[in-house]
Amino acid sequence: MADAETKGPICLLTDFGIEDNYVGVMKGVIQSIAPGCAMIDLSHHIPPQDIRSAAFLLDHSVDYFAQGTIFLCVIDPGVGTHRRKLAIDCGGHYFIGPDNGLLNSFLDAGRVHQIESDRHRLPQVSNTFHGRDIFAPAAAHLCCGVPLADLGPKCQDPIRMESSEPAREGEDWLGEVVYVDRFGNLVTNFDSDRFLGVVETGDFRVQTKGGVEWPFARTYAEVPNENRCSVMGGFFRLELSINCGNASNRLGLSTGSQVCLVKS
Amino acid sequence: MADAETKGPICLLTDFGIEDNYVGVMKGVIQSIAPGCAMIDLSHHIPPQDIRSAAFLLDHSVDYFAQGTIFLCVIDPGVGTHRRKLAIDCGGHYFIGPDNGLLNSFLDAGRVHQIESDRHRLPQVSNTFHGRDIFAPAAAHLCCGVPLADLGPKCQDPIRMESSEPAREGEDWLGEVVYVDRFGNLVTNFDSDRFLGVVETGDFRVQTKGGVEWPFARTYAEVPNENRCSVMGGFFRLELSINCGNASNRLGLSTGSQVCLVKS
Amino acid sequence: MADAETKGPICLLTDFGIEDNYVGVMKGVIQSIAPGCAMIDLSHHIPPQDIRSAAFLLDHSVDYFAQGTIFLCVIDPGVGTHRRKLAIDCGGHYFIGPDNGLLNSFLDAGRVHQIESDRHRLPQVSNTFHGRDIFAPAAAHLCCGVPLADLGPKCQDPIRMESSEPAREGEDWLGEVVYVDRFGNLVTNFDSDRFLGVVETGDFRVQTKGGVEWPFARTYAEVPNENRCSVMGGFFRLELSINCGNASNRLGLSTGSQVCLVKS
Repeated sequence: MADAETKGPICLLTDFGIEDNYVGVMKGVIQSIAPGCAMIDLSHHIPPQDIRSAAFLLDHSVDYFAQGTIFLCVIDPGVGTHRRKLAIDCGGHYFIGPDNGLLNSFLDAGRVHQIESDRHRLPQVSNTFHGRDIFAPAAAHLCCGVPLADLGPKCQDPIRMESSEPAREGEDWLGEVVYVDRFGNLVTNFDSDRFLGVVETGDFRVQTKGGVEWPFARTYAEVPNENRCSVMGGFFRLELSINCGNASNRLGLSTGSQVCLVKS
Repeated sequence: MADAETKGPICLLTDFGIEDNYVGVMKGVIQSIAPGCAMIDLSHHIPPQDIRSAAFLLDHSVDYFAQGTIFLCVIDPGVGTHRRKLAIDCGGHYFIGPDNGLLNSFLDAGRVHQIESDRHRLPQVSNTFHGRDIFAPAAAHLCCGVPLADLGPKCQDPIRMESSEPAREGEDWLGEVVYVDRFGNLVTNFDSDRFLGVVETGDFRVQTKGGVEWPFARTYAEVPNENRCSVMGGFFRLELSINCGNASNRLGLSTGSQVCLVKS
Repeated sequence: MADAETKGPICLLTDFGIEDNYVGVMKGVIQSIAPGCAMIDLSHHIPPQDIRSAAFLLDHSVDYFAQGTIFLCVIDPGVGTHRRKLAIDCGGHYFIGPDNGLLNSFLDAGRVHQIESDRHRLPQVSNTFHGRDIFAPAAAHLCCGVPLADLGPKCQDPIRMESSEPAREGEDWLGEVVYVDRFGNLVTNFDSDRFLGVVETGDFRVQTKGGVEWPFARTYAEVPNENRCSVMGGFFRLELSINCGNASNRLGLSTGSQVCLVKS
């Protein structure tokens, strides 16, 4: 058997929550197959079956993890159907998960295989919990040095998910909220690389529906408590926030809500 | 001192939640005594003092964990009273927890000892937190190779908990909900081994009070969103579900609610 | 590079919650820098920006952790401002966190440095997430053997936080609630060492506003369900509890609420 130290850690992303034993038994399965493998929880609180939010978190996490990390991602509304199961090698980072768009960002840069091997799953496979029965064993075997090709054949046509980019509209920019964090901060698709310069000039005002303004600030602490602001946050995206408040709840905004940079 | 690698991981099951430092300090104690020992959270979200739900989760988790795993289980309404504390060796899996029925499934197959040793607990023992002061140290010492008998004498008469089995009633089968997961899925005591064949024939209808029907399906995805179904779920038990909905809330059903297989 | 085994584990305390990827990426960063380092979650559910509750939990956790443990504490309302960042060596336990009073209890016993080194942070530092970009790397480098002095210069005047002590008032003692746990137990500043003898005599009655009484008991189980009691709890502090109920919600009491020991 191969060495459990060659790869890892295994980083888990699911919508299972942590109330039940679902995540715990996945870890038990991994630990049984790859005893030396470290495990890190990325999040288990993705809104149930919200593939887009999960993909956002994954995309904005990968760079913080060491080479060799295996991302085990189970947001899987199609469990038990004929949707395929993917294993991807991106030359340093590995991904295991359902073929439903969740791993979209890693399809082009990586070698993509379908997980089909009977030898690399649990003996008894349920219809409703492939996280435990198929995905966790695949990740653990990968961690132990099993080659990608042993898990199954190449996948030629994995399912894609459209990504969301800001669009020009006259002199303005039109974007949207792509993620809401648990503090109610509204993360947009205006990324720091392209738009920090734009908003810093003061030539554009950040607005949501009804002309609600979100004055640009360098940090939350620059505006008084309970005030609106927009900052380039920890995702290196423009975020709409209420200092010490919940912007999503207060304004009734959520994923998909329009955000404009309006030329002054 | 014995080798921390001979046993483990330690798998934790409690009703402490994770808001406070209760689980964290238990892990600190374990790590202090058994530095090399891996720790896996099974769940810390058992409804407070719900021994039955905890026992269900434990019973349906053990087989997914490697030989040598020590299950540290603290659902302990009687903390500080004279209820005994148990350590069980089931020939591969080990269990530490209060003597209140929680470890019922492992009493007959294992050697059962009472934890009484002063040398294997913290120097200062509180009246309200034996998880930290007694159970965690016992698990950690076990992990380090301390023999069961060093923790205390054999326990001859541990407390039992009645298990719940479906009963025949004329041509029908009468069962009940034994666990509700965080999605509101109602897990019954109809197990796959005995009842998959029964429900697959289509000769029985799955019903709850008021004649509410739960058509049998192979997977959630076989029924439209918001529709009721019953599936053989990840616990290999018949589960009553609403696809993309919360069956427990919608129907007002919970642990103990009657579920019938009615002969057509 | 120094050996990752010389220190650790890293014990994390934040107010980030676990819904998003915030804690996960901090662990990714740590694991990238210090691959061999164990990590333990103390809590991520400190009420947002509640420095006092975080300090209470930290103070009552440290002694349960092994020598070498690094406490990585990020409750940081001033993130992105000029508040300083501290690294403290207390001769066995280490602390990393913002200079806002959170680490108050460890300032006098330890060597206190400011974290300023560019070489021991991530290449790209955001304005809103120093937990990931500065604090986690500092903890990981410390774990790898980087000397405190390499992180930055000595801090001569760290910010202090007043601690809360019971005061004599005539024959009575006047204290307050300093922490509320998730069960609604009200933890006071009456510590066991000084006040167990006082309350055990029966010469004092435990009261909150309006003369509400909390009869002293050895354990919760000594009083009927739903009844009030006060016990010397797991923090070795006098706690006001309702057996199987939520004392905080029922009585409308919280952090800062007055608690009196009234001479009979």
